[in-house]
Amino acid sequence: VPAHDHRVKASRRLSELDAIELLRGLLASGPNPRGVEVGIGDDAAVLSAGGGKLVWTIDSCIEGAHFDRRWLSLEDVGWRSFMAAVSDVAAMGATPLAALSELSLPAGTSRAELARLGRGQAAAARAARCPVVGGNVSRARDLAVVTTVLGRVERPLLRSGARAGDELWLVGRVGYAALGLRLLREGRRARGAGERAAVAAWRRPVALVDRGPALAGRASAALDVSDGLAGDAAHLARASAVRVVIEGAALLKGLGREMVDAARRSGCEPLELALHGGEDYALLATGRQRPRFARRIGRIERGEGVWLERPGGAASRITRGGWDHLEPRG
Amino acid sequence: VPAHDHRVKASRRLSELDAIELLRGLLASGPNPRGVEVGIGDDAAVLSAGGGKLVWTIDSCIEGAHFDRRWLSLEDVGWRSFMAAVSDVAAMGATPLAALSELSLPAGTSRAELARLGRGQAAAARAARCPVVGGNVSRARDLAVVTTVLGRVERPLLRSGARAGDELWLVGRVGYAALGLRLLREGRRARGAGERAAVAAWRRPVALVDRGPALAGRASAALDVSDGLAGDAAHLARASAVRVVIEGAALLKGLGREMVDAARRSGCEPLELALHGGEDYALLATGRQRPRFARRIGRIERGEGVWLERPGGAASRITRGGWDHLEPRG
Repeated sequence: VPAHDHRVKASRRLSELDAIELLRGLLASGPNPRGVEVGIGDDAAVLSAGGGKLVWTIDSCIEGAHFDRRWLSLEDVGWRSFMAAVSDVAAMGATPLAALSELSLPAGTSRAELARLGRGQAAAARAARCPVVGGNVSRARDLAVVTTVLGRVERPLLRSGARAGDELWLVGRVGYAALGLRLLREGRRARGAGERAAVAAWRRPVALVDRGPALAGRASAALDVSDGLAGDAAHLARASAVRVVIEGAALLKGLGREMVDAARRSGCEPLELALHGGEDYALLATGRQRPRFARRIGRIERGEGVWLERPGGAASRITRGGWDHLEPRG
Repeated sequence: VPAHDHRVKASRRLSELDAIELLRGLLASGPNPRGVEVGIGDDAAVLSAGGGKLVWTIDSCIEGAHFDRRWLSLEDVGWRSFMAAVSDVAAMGATPLAALSELSLPAGTSRAELARLGRGQAAAARAARCPVVGGNVSRARDLAVVTTVLGRVERPLLRSGARAGDELWLVGRVGYAALGLRLLREGRRARGAGERAAVAAWRRPVALVDRGPALAGRASAALDVSDGLAGDAAHLARASAVRVVIEGAALLKGLGREMVDAARRSGCEPLELALHGGEDYALLATGRQRPRFARRIGRIERGEGVWLERPGGAASRITRGGWDHLEPRG
């Protein structure tokens, strides 16, 4: 499970959260500038623009850090990089408007290779109904795709809106992508529907561009599960100053039989995969009037941190964080 | 002069223009989607939003491709990367609204190093009155900063608006940055005002965020001179389907005595530097009612291509292109 193989905390190393805090201090001291409603720290920034609001994000997909070409075609790289970025916009309840992409290409990249990358982006852009309207190409040692996406929303769903008494909802599936990556790393061929779904989830994640806006009127908070459910729940708990209680039995029940079987065949505990596997781009939300497409997997209480109620009954605090983008992932 | 040391054309290599054409075919076939006024191909994309229009760009600054830490501090890297991106927005006549940045940090990047990078970005953001409102950090082999900037404009200045009979205007200075880079590469200490200005121009370019919007009511077309005046003039000629005639005497006269002297001391022909040196982030524009801050350096005629009228009188077509971001720049 990638999000947890490397959880060793080296205190002198700069972590992702440290880096973001440091940059926030340098770049965003004082109140938000005029027209800026949400600055550094949420899934995306929010700007006021005419009547509605613009939601704006940037995300990267870098060879060696985020992917390995042994396990992904260049079409997959184009697709995944696009979906990861557009998911941040969906997580704010916004409808994607358009995207720009920066492609860093190693020397010797051929026309055919660039075409594969572009076709993957184009397919994802069509699937997300979010056209790529510009970009830039550069030379670099590592292949990298950086995608920025703009979306529009009336009232953005922030990480900070959860309140004690809310339910905790999951939209979409978790754990599949991490299991898929594990199978690819082990060089095993996917067997059975569960394993094939897991590999597909990792290679071709689908951002929930319809579900995000559909949550916008009903949820009190939302974010996308990119770093692992437990880690992203911790972001929610911190931003909303609440305790997030994940009910293990409900989470496990929602995983699906085939996933549970596939995980166990690979020697993984399904609940561990669900809590600590990343990159599924599911949505985690809170609220009181649950839409039918959302599954209740826990509740919000007064307090702090993320707690897991084991199917047996005992609750324990989850202290392991999520995925740190500055830690090696190799 | 960096933009012309490497002009060797390897036909089998993928050039920047080839790459952009290929991507345009894949990503932007058919008419622009709803709300998209300008797609792939100009300095920035243009979206309609409420009353006005949004101008949106993305730009990268990658170690090894765009800079070498021997010649730039990390503060300089933060500053330059920001100004390069904001310049695209100014070149469309837009006022910058806000920026996001993606930082790719090599393993072992320290807190102090990240702080230097962030301080450079913050200083540039203040100078351009364009706050950084979010971003992302990742791990990578090469240090890279990717910046996306949004601006607002009533009527964007496109590359395609030049008409025969227009004047050709230059706002700001050209050639300085290329001379500065040459001095740094040769390991020479800058002597005299001209050389010091050249090194400063390369390390700390200043995007013309006030001049761009001031051109918006008066120019017929504009773009920023990032790839070298001749190369960017060729972009203008192609997009507007006109001939650009650069009057050498007028261009030379505007360079300034100290620059001419400094160039000659370095064994450079000043006109060559002005035509083929990049990264000054001056603005090239066309129109008939020239504002006082713009210098006339030529004219627009029916025809095609970029022509240079030598101070002597003879005109010759400039066939060398600008800077190709997919060519090595070592």
